[in-house]
Amino acid sequence: MINFQFHMPTRIIFGPGKLNELGTTPHLPGRKALIVISAGGSMVRHGYMQLVQTLLAQNGAESVVFDRVQPNPVLEHVTEGAALARAEGCDFVLGLGGGSSIDSAKSIALMANNPGNYWDYMPGGTGGRQVPPNPALPIVAIPTTAGTGTEADPWTVITREQTREKIGWGNDSTYPALSIVDPRLMLSVPPRVTAMTGMDAFFHAVEAYVSRARQPSSDLLAQQAVSLITSFLPQVVKDGSGVEARTMLAWASTAAGLCESLSSCISHHSMEHALSAYYPDIPHGAGLVMLSVPYFRHLTRYVPDRMVDLAYFMGADVDAMPAKEQPLAFVAALEKLIADIGLDDLTFSAYGVKQSDMPKLAKNALETMGGLFNLTPTQMNERVVTEIFEAAYR
Amino acid sequence: MINFQFHMPTRIIFGPGKLNELGTTPHLPGRKALIVISAGGSMVRHGYMQLVQTLLAQNGAESVVFDRVQPNPVLEHVTEGAALARAEGCDFVLGLGGGSSIDSAKSIALMANNPGNYWDYMPGGTGGRQVPPNPALPIVAIPTTAGTGTEADPWTVITREQTREKIGWGNDSTYPALSIVDPRLMLSVPPRVTAMTGMDAFFHAVEAYVSRARQPSSDLLAQQAVSLITSFLPQVVKDGSGVEARTMLAWASTAAGLCESLSSCISHHSMEHALSAYYPDIPHGAGLVMLSVPYFRHLTRYVPDRMVDLAYFMGADVDAMPAKEQPLAFVAALEKLIADIGLDDLTFSAYGVKQSDMPKLAKNALETMGGLFNLTPTQMNERVVTEIFEAAYR
Ligand SMILES: [Fe+2]
Ligand SMILES: [Fe+2]
Repeated sequence: MINFQFHMPTRIIFGPGKLNELGTTPHLPGRKALIVISAGGSMVRHGYMQLVQTLLAQNGAESVVFDRVQPNPVLEHVTEGAALARAEGCDFVLGLGGGSSIDSAKSIALMANNPGNYWDYMPGGTGGRQVPPNPALPIVAIPTTAGTGTEADPWTVITREQTREKIGWGNDSTYPALSIVDPRLMLSVPPRVTAMTGMDAFFHAVEAYVSRARQPSSDLLAQQAVSLITSFLPQVVKDGSGVEARTMLAWASTAAGLCESLSSCISHHSMEHALSAYYPDIPHGAGLVMLSVPYFRHLTRYVPDRMVDLAYFMGADVDAMPAKEQPLAFVAALEKLIADIGLDDLTFSAYGVKQSDMPKLAKNALETMGGLFNLTPTQMNERVVTEIFEAAYR
Repeated sequence: MINFQFHMPTRIIFGPGKLNELGTTPHLPGRKALIVISAGGSMVRHGYMQLVQTLLAQNGAESVVFDRVQPNPVLEHVTEGAALARAEGCDFVLGLGGGSSIDSAKSIALMANNPGNYWDYMPGGTGGRQVPPNPALPIVAIPTTAGTGTEADPWTVITREQTREKIGWGNDSTYPALSIVDPRLMLSVPPRVTAMTGMDAFFHAVEAYVSRARQPSSDLLAQQAVSLITSFLPQVVKDGSGVEARTMLAWASTAAGLCESLSSCISHHSMEHALSAYYPDIPHGAGLVMLSVPYFRHLTRYVPDRMVDLAYFMGADVDAMPAKEQPLAFVAALEKLIADIGLDDLTFSAYGVKQSDMPKLAKNALETMGGLFNLTPTQMNERVVTEIFEAAYR
């Protein structure tokens, strides 16, 4: 019977041109922001950083910039960013950019207001499993890619390089207080990044839809996100200049982020975190894509009806198929989508992944992100996880 | 293009048997509750009140009871309840019962923490249009009917008897901090009340779906609520003893409440408020039902496509109809639903409504709840509103 907890306290302002509301919103959660951006410089090159600072000033808020975030953000920079926020007396943290910047902003916001080291509070792997005594500083999220959904969930993913651990974590205080999703900021995302981040969002929706933590609201949002990404991602990868299509993908990504809050990702994400913890050059979305076909083929045995639903949402004419093939219609549609967006060339070997690593990656996935295995609709032991990694090896 | 604000900070715990979590949840927002229940005594008769007090005590919270709420709650009791909350040093307010008790809890929570009179803060009619200087005390909502959706929205509807004004109002602080929706508490609702409250939820969803304030999330939830209520309400009116069917209706009602937060009701609700402000014996759901057929027939001219959608969600075989009849398929399905649940006997005249009142009711609707007219997908002046009232007269 229907049975759930609904909790998604973030205020999301969504729409083309809505960044301007940063200059006027009465919901700014502080008077001095630490702005967290990536080290790559794209936020400055596109002028987004200056615009955000101008709008904050217009709204009476000062700002200081922390620009050291890497594509796979690391513990060391959380510590640095938090020290800067404290030294500068910032009372909120604003993440501007892709998932790495916004996740870093969340973790920095936590550590700006708490003693010790971030890893003391991690609940997996070598983490200290402590409960943070204080809430994070309030967080503002302004995504410039459509994918992570971090603007609509409490999760932040940080890597501890020394032990090759990449852990997703969050609590009630790491939901952004305010997120502004302006699809115009996504117009300049290059095709390959559009494809990879779009598939990240796709899998958030798919995983939430089969997760044991699912609820009616996340089912509805997941259905919409899967449909929209299947329809719009191939087109936007070919031509990313249309605001309307970018808006559809931005909404799909935010909807899939809501799914991560209302339901949950499952062990597909645990496995990807292990992969990119060892091979930080692998973008998160690429890792998910490379694992996905054997992963969901395995899952199909246990939740065939949900897989048929997902195939329908992708537009597959499941009724026209022989009954035996129907459960695998999702995997077939997934393979077609991956090919349509040009990501069928992704291989472990091209990223330098060693075939002999598979058992080690399986162990890491279970140790660092074991919680998501409990929400996966079938029990998966180390042998099964290793087999899926091996099946994904090309 | 998609364009919205998403904000729904209430934590909702939903499911049969979930009331017990009141005794253990770490999310209780205070240590001393004012429990607000109706004057009718049903909460005591069913033992719900004692159970809530026991569970609060288990969770370390004291409680005091305010039991003067009427079916159409009035300003005077808001003032009384707030005085009691202050005198007793309550730090949160818990509404237990139907919409009237929970709405009263919200308004009492506001006035327990603010100076002056509740009407000073009302933004319509003779209201003082002031902004409350302080937030409401935190609110806990425990509904025992499926209908108002007040557990999932910030709205509270209070009547000022002296001037016949019934105004819905709310702000960010009147979202419940915590709502527990336990369909088991709804098993004893009698058939006629089940039918009327179920239709209230139905119209929240329908109105949100055609409202100018709609957004993708509210569209999805409205679609589900309309489908579930069409499927389950006739069956539960016949036999209300099944937990599963009650659970579907409880979820539909909460989903429709989410729609009221994410989108909005429209002028159908303004018109009903005028009606039951003058005739407080008319239950809100009954008023909506009596107005609905002429109201939505009028609206069909302006949003025919949305009306066809709604007919589909109700299971109507719209494709089989001649093109000209398709837009009115919703009104036809609505008439059938009203008959199926036995509410086709409701008439203005049976409630003693005078036919000559129609112009006065139209004026009142526009004056006291004018805001919802701005969200209605067509402009409606006093003449049009009067005509709809007159068409509803039987
Ligand atoms: Fe992800
Ligand atoms: Fe209502």
